[in-house]
Amino acid sequence: MVEGAKGYRLDEIVAKLGGELRGDGARRVMQVATLSNAQPEQIAFLSNSKYQKQLQDTRAGAVVLAADAADAFSGPRIVTRNPYLYFARVSQLLNPLEAAPAGAHPSAVVESRLPASASVGANACIGPGCTVGEGARIASGCIIGRDVKIGAGARLHANVTVYDGCVIGERAILHSGAVIGSDGFGFAREDEGRWSKIPQIGRVIIGDDVEIGANTSIDRGAIDDTVIEDGVKLDNQIQIAHNCRIGAHTAIAGCVGIAGSTRIGRRCMIGGAAMIIGHLDICDDVVISAATFVTKSIATPGEYAGIPFEPRREWLKTAARLRQLDSMAAKIHDLEARLAGLEKKHDGHS
Amino acid sequence: MVEGAKGYRLDEIVAKLGGELRGDGARRVMQVATLSNAQPEQIAFLSNSKYQKQLQDTRAGAVVLAADAADAFSGPRIVTRNPYLYFARVSQLLNPLEAAPAGAHPSAVVESRLPASASVGANACIGPGCTVGEGARIASGCIIGRDVKIGAGARLHANVTVYDGCVIGERAILHSGAVIGSDGFGFAREDEGRWSKIPQIGRVIIGDDVEIGANTSIDRGAIDDTVIEDGVKLDNQIQIAHNCRIGAHTAIAGCVGIAGSTRIGRRCMIGGAAMIIGHLDICDDVVISAATFVTKSIATPGEYAGIPFEPRREWLKTAARLRQLDSMAAKIHDLEARLAGLEKKHDGHS
Amino acid sequence: MVEGAKGYRLDEIVAKLGGELRGDGARRVMQVATLSNAQPEQIAFLSNSKYQKQLQDTRAGAVVLAADAADAFSGPRIVTRNPYLYFARVSQLLNPLEAAPAGAHPSAVVESRLPASASVGANACIGPGCTVGEGARIASGCIIGRDVKIGAGARLHANVTVYDGCVIGERAILHSGAVIGSDGFGFAREDEGRWSKIPQIGRVIIGDDVEIGANTSIDRGAIDDTVIEDGVKLDNQIQIAHNCRIGAHTAIAGCVGIAGSTRIGRRCMIGGAAMIIGHLDICDDVVISAATFVTKSIATPGEYAGIPFEPRREWLKTAARLRQLDSMAAKIHDLEARLAGLEKKHDGHS
Repeated sequence: MVEGAKGYRLDEIVAKLGGELRGDGARRVMQVATLSNAQPEQIAFLSNSKYQKQLQDTRAGAVVLAADAADAFSGPRIVTRNPYLYFARVSQLLNPLEAAPAGAHPSAVVESRLPASASVGANACIGPGCTVGEGARIASGCIIGRDVKIGAGARLHANVTVYDGCVIGERAILHSGAVIGSDGFGFAREDEGRWSKIPQIGRVIIGDDVEIGANTSIDRGAIDDTVIEDGVKLDNQIQIAHNCRIGAHTAIAGCVGIAGSTRIGRRCMIGGAAMIIGHLDICDDVVISAATFVTKSIATPGEYAGIPFEPRREWLKTAARLRQLDSMAAKIHDLEARLAGLEKKHDGHS
Repeated sequence: MVEGAKGYRLDEIVAKLGGELRGDGARRVMQVATLSNAQPEQIAFLSNSKYQKQLQDTRAGAVVLAADAADAFSGPRIVTRNPYLYFARVSQLLNPLEAAPAGAHPSAVVESRLPASASVGANACIGPGCTVGEGARIASGCIIGRDVKIGAGARLHANVTVYDGCVIGERAILHSGAVIGSDGFGFAREDEGRWSKIPQIGRVIIGDDVEIGANTSIDRGAIDDTVIEDGVKLDNQIQIAHNCRIGAHTAIAGCVGIAGSTRIGRRCMIGGAAMIIGHLDICDDVVISAATFVTKSIATPGEYAGIPFEPRREWLKTAARLRQLDSMAAKIHDLEARLAGLEKKHDGHS
Repeated sequence: MVEGAKGYRLDEIVAKLGGELRGDGARRVMQVATLSNAQPEQIAFLSNSKYQKQLQDTRAGAVVLAADAADAFSGPRIVTRNPYLYFARVSQLLNPLEAAPAGAHPSAVVESRLPASASVGANACIGPGCTVGEGARIASGCIIGRDVKIGAGARLHANVTVYDGCVIGERAILHSGAVIGSDGFGFAREDEGRWSKIPQIGRVIIGDDVEIGANTSIDRGAIDDTVIEDGVKLDNQIQIAHNCRIGAHTAIAGCVGIAGSTRIGRRCMIGGAAMIIGHLDICDDVVISAATFVTKSIATPGEYAGIPFEPRREWLKTAARLRQLDSMAAKIHDLEARLAGLEKKHDGHS
């Protein structure tokens, strides 16, 4: 855990973040914790009633919870409508980003002008023609091509690669091993089966407040651009192919693959290891379960799941039946035998 | 988009690439574009008759198309048998690789002799005993081990890693985050369940004209080599395990995993997120659909799909039936009740 | 292959590793090989009786095999209960790790004190506050954050990234592109659908003798730590989400994804491309087949497979039935028609 934070009094927290304080407002908390592991100088939260009985035994110095659980804890507490969101904000308060030294490390190779507030780590490289915003942080080992724009307050962790011409929005966070702007997978087939490369001349445009996970790759567009809109959150090991557009505030969990030219709407949530084929349109507010294989466009908001995919409540039935498939086959076999017997008898009667 | 190209006249293009010119050969085009977004100084293409009506409204200065669509556009045009392939070549002409400065950046650590025409980027490392071909480009942050061979004209984008002893063919393109020659996953199990590492002493041999996507990994062989033959195209986030052999001109889309010692034939096409288990033989000219799970060798060219996989046209039926599985179960239940009723009546009649 | 090894006599090998020597103990072997490719100065092994007839034609100078096959080869041989494990140890003997130069390359940026026996490659970075064990090897291009602990004898291949505060055990091996300690995917949703980041303040703790493959990512814990216990082996392209715990000596093949807070027991084996959702408990000694989608906790050791998963022997039946699904549907249709006919006749009889 990050050491050395001075912490906050509960009344200071409520003054900054709202919520209703009950109990001793002078209680100081230094860090967030889970109910089960919290120490007296830590603040925990309850967002799922399943864990409500942990309130009895927790050593937490304070708890964030909803009104309906507020009487189940007698210590200092903050009552709020959305304890999980409130907890996120308390944690942001208690865990501010450590300062990075402004300026470029002497070992960095920087061929563009930087604002004085930007930070560039050891052995990082920034090509010519780049624009870097105020307070941007480019960690050690990052390689930024030429003519790249990096927004104010963006944070690139170590060993991120950004190809020529791409755009990274303000306050975007890119984790190590992320690759932005590699060539899309575009080839024309020759008669004998050889592949002729189609130059990938589009860019990747990443909006503000986007987060991109470790070892995730986003290909540049073939002709037009690949676009990740504001507020999108991408987990690790994701592949976004050329010319995709991911709508604002969509969240995509790890190991997802999205093939070329597919458009995902806004506020979608896509579960881990889902695979979405190319040239589809997924509308806003779609929820796709983990490991779903999406093969058709989706025009109706809702939850989808399965292989092949279908509305999630249908897939739950299909999945249950799948485990009965062998007994269904046995029943059909039995029905056939009995029916044949009956048909024979019947012929005898006729 | 890449700026500053001088462009080509249509008659210059046809002189270089063939095809039949109709209309004004002096028309100069600067860049390729899609029919829907093209500007007058750009050249577009029509390879799918579905988009033929876009010819009416396109602002493109010229279009590449097939003979059967040639009369649907009245502006300058190039008629050819395979417009998509022709378009790839026009785009290669209009988007030549930017020149890279010959020689090694002062911050690079190079322990092998380089030809004067090779380019090594900032903070790249090349170990001892390497052979680097004429015109090879090794971008910033690449780490090349010892005794590696890199063919003439090969291009390694930023932050590629090549382990000791591997071979990269001529004109190969490796994208950022690619890892070539990491140890295969080889362990012998001890009685108590611990694993004893089997040294991975093979190499990775990559042929000429191979392209390898971002964050793709190819393990070195356990004893013999892992081999990627000429002209293979690998997309991003692919895993090729030790001792695989991928046949010439096979194309593999993103997120595919191929387990150890599997051999894939020539000119195969493998869809995204397909998974192929180890020790299989897939013959030449096999097409595997996205998200297929291949568990047996394939000896007959053709299309395969599904989980578990089967010939694609069979899987399409299976997939349709999967969505009916719950209603099939209900029908069996109904049949059982009706048949039991009939059997009872029949016993009554006897 | 690694050149220059002096090799060992068979009697030297048996003196070190045990086993029963038959034939000429003075035979010297330089390298391991497969039966089919072995040369006279190489030693091969037979661990699968399927390949026993290769013993007749092999050119191997010596063979490691079990007692029941010992008479099928007349040359020098070593008889042992577990030939595969013995072979692993012979290969370790013949392929010792090459020496790395002790000390830090002048281009490395090292802000912590190193033991004299540690090796740090070109352009690597080690932040302040780190503890590095004796004989640890940190290859070129690795970026190690602040306050990281790296155990004695650990080996980080080129371009590995370790975030602040993480712990790497003794003799651990991390392959290129591995990312340890990136932020977990944790966000609280605001009313309008925006995501508020939950600071990820846990660490990643990696035990002794762990191996981690190329481009694998392991996220730091949200509050508590993500833990990889001793002896775990992870292949390439794996995603381990925040707060997972992987039990000792568990082996996980490539392309697997494990969602947050899932706990995997000890000595499990998880096949390639399996996906395991979050908040599950998998007990010790579970074997999960490749491409399985695990959606519930597992409390009984054994083999599991399928989508959705079930005990492996059940899934094998389900998978076989899946390919019959279309004919099952046709049979139901036929049964319905025949039964309706019989019911009609029956009504006529009544």
